[in-house]
Amino acid sequence: KQTFEPNEHQHIRYNPLRDEWILVSAHRMKRPWKGQLEKPTEVNITRHDPTNPLCPGATRANGEVNPEYESTYVFDNDFPSLQPDAPDPGPSKHPLFQSKAARGDCKVMCFHPHSDITLPLMSIPEIRAVIDKWVELMVELGSTYQWVQIFENKGAMMGCSNPHPHCQVWASSFLPNEPRIADQTQRDHYKSHKMPMLVEYAKLESQNKERIVVENEDWLVVVPYWAMWPFQTLLIPRRHVLRLQDLSDNERDSLASIMKRLLTKYDNLFEVSFPYSMGWHGAPTGQSLLDDNSHWQLHAHYYPPLLRSATIRKFMVGYELLAQAQRDLTPEQAAERLRNLPEIHYKLGQN
Amino acid sequence: KQTFEPNEHQHIRYNPLRDEWILVSAHRMKRPWKGQLEKPTEVNITRHDPTNPLCPGATRANGEVNPEYESTYVFDNDFPSLQPDAPDPGPSKHPLFQSKAARGDCKVMCFHPHSDITLPLMSIPEIRAVIDKWVELMVELGSTYQWVQIFENKGAMMGCSNPHPHCQVWASSFLPNEPRIADQTQRDHYKSHKMPMLVEYAKLESQNKERIVVENEDWLVVVPYWAMWPFQTLLIPRRHVLRLQDLSDNERDSLASIMKRLLTKYDNLFEVSFPYSMGWHGAPTGQSLLDDNSHWQLHAHYYPPLLRSATIRKFMVGYELLAQAQRDLTPEQAAERLRNLPEIHYKLGQN
Ligand SMILES: O=P(O)(O)O[C@H]1O[C@H](CO)[C@@H](O)[C@H](O)[C@H]1O
Ligand SMILES: O=P(O)(O)O[C@H]1O[C@H](CO)[C@@H](O)[C@H](O)[C@H]1O
Repeated sequence: KQTFEPNEHQHIRYNPLRDEWILVSAHRMKRPWKGQLEKPTEVNITRHDPTNPLCPGATRANGEVNPEYESTYVFDNDFPSLQPDAPDPGPSKHPLFQSKAARGDCKVMCFHPHSDITLPLMSIPEIRAVIDKWVELMVELGSTYQWVQIFENKGAMMGCSNPHPHCQVWASSFLPNEPRIADQTQRDHYKSHKMPMLVEYAKLESQNKERIVVENEDWLVVVPYWAMWPFQTLLIPRRHVLRLQDLSDNERDSLASIMKRLLTKYDNLFEVSFPYSMGWHGAPTGQSLLDDNSHWQLHAHYYPPLLRSATIRKFMVGYELLAQAQRDLTPEQAAERLRNLPEIHYKLGQN
Repeated sequence: KQTFEPNEHQHIRYNPLRDEWILVSAHRMKRPWKGQLEKPTEVNITRHDPTNPLCPGATRANGEVNPEYESTYVFDNDFPSLQPDAPDPGPSKHPLFQSKAARGDCKVMCFHPHSDITLPLMSIPEIRAVIDKWVELMVELGSTYQWVQIFENKGAMMGCSNPHPHCQVWASSFLPNEPRIADQTQRDHYKSHKMPMLVEYAKLESQNKERIVVENEDWLVVVPYWAMWPFQTLLIPRRHVLRLQDLSDNERDSLASIMKRLLTKYDNLFEVSFPYSMGWHGAPTGQSLLDDNSHWQLHAHYYPPLLRSATIRKFMVGYELLAQAQRDLTPEQAAERLRNLPEIHYKLGQN
């Protein structure tokens, strides 16, 4: 009888945050790839394009002119998916045809005045300014909205329509699916284990080391045991922290530092500005600010699509959409590759 | 106070098959698109390429030579994600680090000997041959495996690495996430409504007509009330049918006919060979063949990514991955557009 070897033998792993399983078939990396190649990431971005609505001094779709901002800059999304005043669809007529009101607010946040820079190439104080602005928006929008989703789509491959470094913040009157599931699973874990799931998880990963990519005194980045995307990571504080706004001054500094280290490794993996979608999950806000949310632990998810090279991505398609997520290398293999990469950005290394 | 207008006002809708909500913000179609354009679908595919491992007479990766097949042709996937004999990872050490054995079988099924043809351009008897082969595989693999996932990834955009018309069949010893959820929601509905969810749903949609794309005596294609992808459809039999192998001879013929009509409309929408992932869901098999599965209704999901044109797709990224699916036109608008398209394929119309 063969002994089990995770890098050779397919198996399924449990994702306790989503209460679902994922299929790990690491032997599949041996398969040759003859499918679609992605366009290489754009390399020659001009620092200042006056026609780009995200640049300082540019005119936006609604006719407003951006200030000559020098750090971060936040404005209302000109094509918001969520508006504060949409009317209520009224009561549903049948359980199979249910709709509900959705209200919200969509903001765009520029990270830096230059279009040709990205987070890993920014200085730690510049990244810290981004974090401070995130906290400000969490407090402001979280005072009324139940959920404030901060997310960054980076790279054309991730549907990002503008190369200028930026993220988005969509606040909603309802708790969306993903945080609703994470709320439930963390609540269940807390009840049975008397410890927040991700605080316990961070402690175990920190001892085990196998899936750690980078760590510092306050933070940990791991390729989670149940990662779905090839180089997916989870960024978690060591301390029990409910929301971004609960981070201490020190923790914000060390967050800026660990983000720079992680994102530098990502760029170094295939020597390309690494595409991903990322976002923050913490305890719900609005009315939920009054509830006991001790089961929650703040965390950020990074979901990067690349698999084999700068132009070969993982497709989450047929089997994944209809049956179950499937990955082609183990989380341990992914963590090891990222961990062993230099922490000096490939664009700066040669200087 | 404004009256609610689904095409103008964002709202959320409930997906009873997945027990989750989706955000509908139809006003967002007005937004200009400056992001990534997809490569146009390949147009000049050679009918027979002896180096293509899916063609009749070609040599595959493992050295085997394909027969000169004249209809469908099934062979073992040369790079399977699931193999029949993977060893068991053994007991898990901690609830946050759970893994389990996964066993299975992956097959590839060619639809036709020619590489330059697709389902909507095939004759009804040729499509019927595909359906018969699906049934055969369901019976064969379903005799031991709990789940048999038939799926088609069509187009490079959907990660399909070979233009030759084909689908895949992945059978597994476990019930994957998506069917597990559909099993639960249908079971719950059956308990409280005493009618299979999708039988009831088909009846209501057939009366209402608003979301119907095509229908015939045995089948119905709708853009479901809770559709996530812009032109997503659901194909359901009118009669209560548990699995593909339970279809009558007539129902198989009318299925071939309705598939041709639906896929012709899809191609006609943007006058391009329409990319999608599709797959069949029916009652589980293997051990579950012995259980009462009356809550199940056979159905196929079509998930096409295109949104605005042959080269502008919907990206399911940041907000969608981290919070909730979001769509930019209502299911009713999508159904109307598809319904009004001709049923003669644009490539044949001018002859
Ligand atoms: O097997 P294929 O068609 O080469 O591969 C495609 O479909 C699979 C099943 O959905 C996915 O896991 C792959 O990422 C995708 O590229
Ligand atoms: O708002 P953007 O960046 O133009 O748009 C992008 O992100 C949104 C939120 O994830 C998605 O709904 C869009 O499909 C995507 O193209």
